Amino acid sequence: MLEEALERVRGEPTRLTVAGRTDTGVHARGQVASHAGSPAPARSLNGVLPRDVRVVASDPAPDGFDARRDARTRLYRYRVLARAAASPFEHGRALHWSGPLDRALLERCAALVAGSHDFTAFTPTQTDHVRFERDVVRSEWLKGGPDVLEYWIEADTFMRHMVRILVGTMLGVCAGRMDVDGFAALLTGRPREEAGDTAPPHGLCLEAVRY
Amino acid sequence: MLEEALERVRGEPTRLTVAGRTDTGVHARGQVASHAGSPAPARSLNGVLPRDVRVVASDPAPDGFDARRDARTRLYRYRVLARAAASPFEHGRALHWSGPLDRALLERCAALVAGSHDFTAFTPTQTDHVRFERDVVRSEWLKGGPDVLEYWIEADTFMRHMVRILVGTMLGVCAGRMDVDGFAALLTGRPREEAGDTAPPHGLCLEAVRY
Repeated sequence: MLEEALERVRGEPTRLTVAGRTDTGVHARGQVASHAGSPAPARSLNGVLPRDVRVVASDPAPDGFDARRDARTRLYRYRVLARAAASPFEHGRALHWSGPLDRALLERCAALVAGSHDFTAFTPTQTDHVRFERDVVRSEWLKGGPDVLEYWIEADTFMRHMVRILVGTMLGVCAGRMDVDGFAALLTGRPREEAGDTAPPHGLCLEAVRY
Repeated sequence: MLEEALERVRGEPTRLTVAGRTDTGVHARGQVASHAGSPAPARSLNGVLPRDVRVVASDPAPDGFDARRDARTRLYRYRVLARAAASPFEHGRALHWSGPLDRALLERCAALVAGSHDFTAFTPTQTDHVRFERDVVRSEWLKGGPDVLEYWIEADTFMRHMVRILVGTMLGVCAGRMDVDGFAALLTGRPREEAGDTAPPHGLCLEAVRY
């Protein structure tokens, strides 16, 4: 869609390289993409893009810059609305979770995720990935407002569904489906079926890419 | 709509008294309402309400409690996204303002609003109000996130469009249509036509009602 807009504005087919993974339904607030040739003005791109996609800035990059290859880390946030009633304000933006939630348990799990681990348990069995180690430099739960908890995770790269399965499994720990030791064991390269559910995409947002 | 839900759940016509004004298009995160008789469970009400309205809690109140009459103050927030590009995340939640914005000017105007003033300039000429003095206990601009400024205002009661005209007029000061002295003069009971535009409703939210 952005490639189509670029082609319309720049007048030639334009191949985009995108820094961070966003599955269908996942949001992105700080996506970065690069293409060859001269930049198109953000205003022109926004004039032809659908309303749910906006270019915040479009600037020249150093020669050879590649948004994906040159990225050092990606930062994602997963939002959970933890209360009985849903919220119209959080519809499509946070997972509505009315089950048991123990912030101390969530924080213990999140602390275990930090560091280098084999995340095989946290990506679908059918996968194109060949390397399952990831280096997580930040992993914590923070308060995101009244009744909202947010999981912030930053890593070198992510596998498909990785954040969503991490969140789904941590919520499963709160629901008593696994204890913290079991969660820790998953990080040693256990198979996918030992981890928990894949949390829905709409709670997830790519917040930033760092270079 | 909430009265219809109450009637369906409680099995009898139920008249609601609502604490805070929300014109069409204005949001409410902390609305309070009261009715006679016993409370209906929030879960039941939410089962029949449309998705954009949710009851967070439904509890018994002291005898004679009236959500409107007993409220001491109402707190509103108006959100402004101040940057060139719109944001899909702020669509319908913040006024997109790509014009000049001077936070110091906004703060000077907001400080003038605090206190007791005649707000005739800040409500439509055609009005049912008979008293135009309001007692503003809080009036300030705060940062609400990257590129977002928020105007927080708390007062005993509000007139129709009052917050929206205040915001529109303050933005007009930033755009050079009026200086701060002119803004100050408006607070002495000047006529509506001397104030600025009515900012659109979608940036406004009733945040809380205090008792």
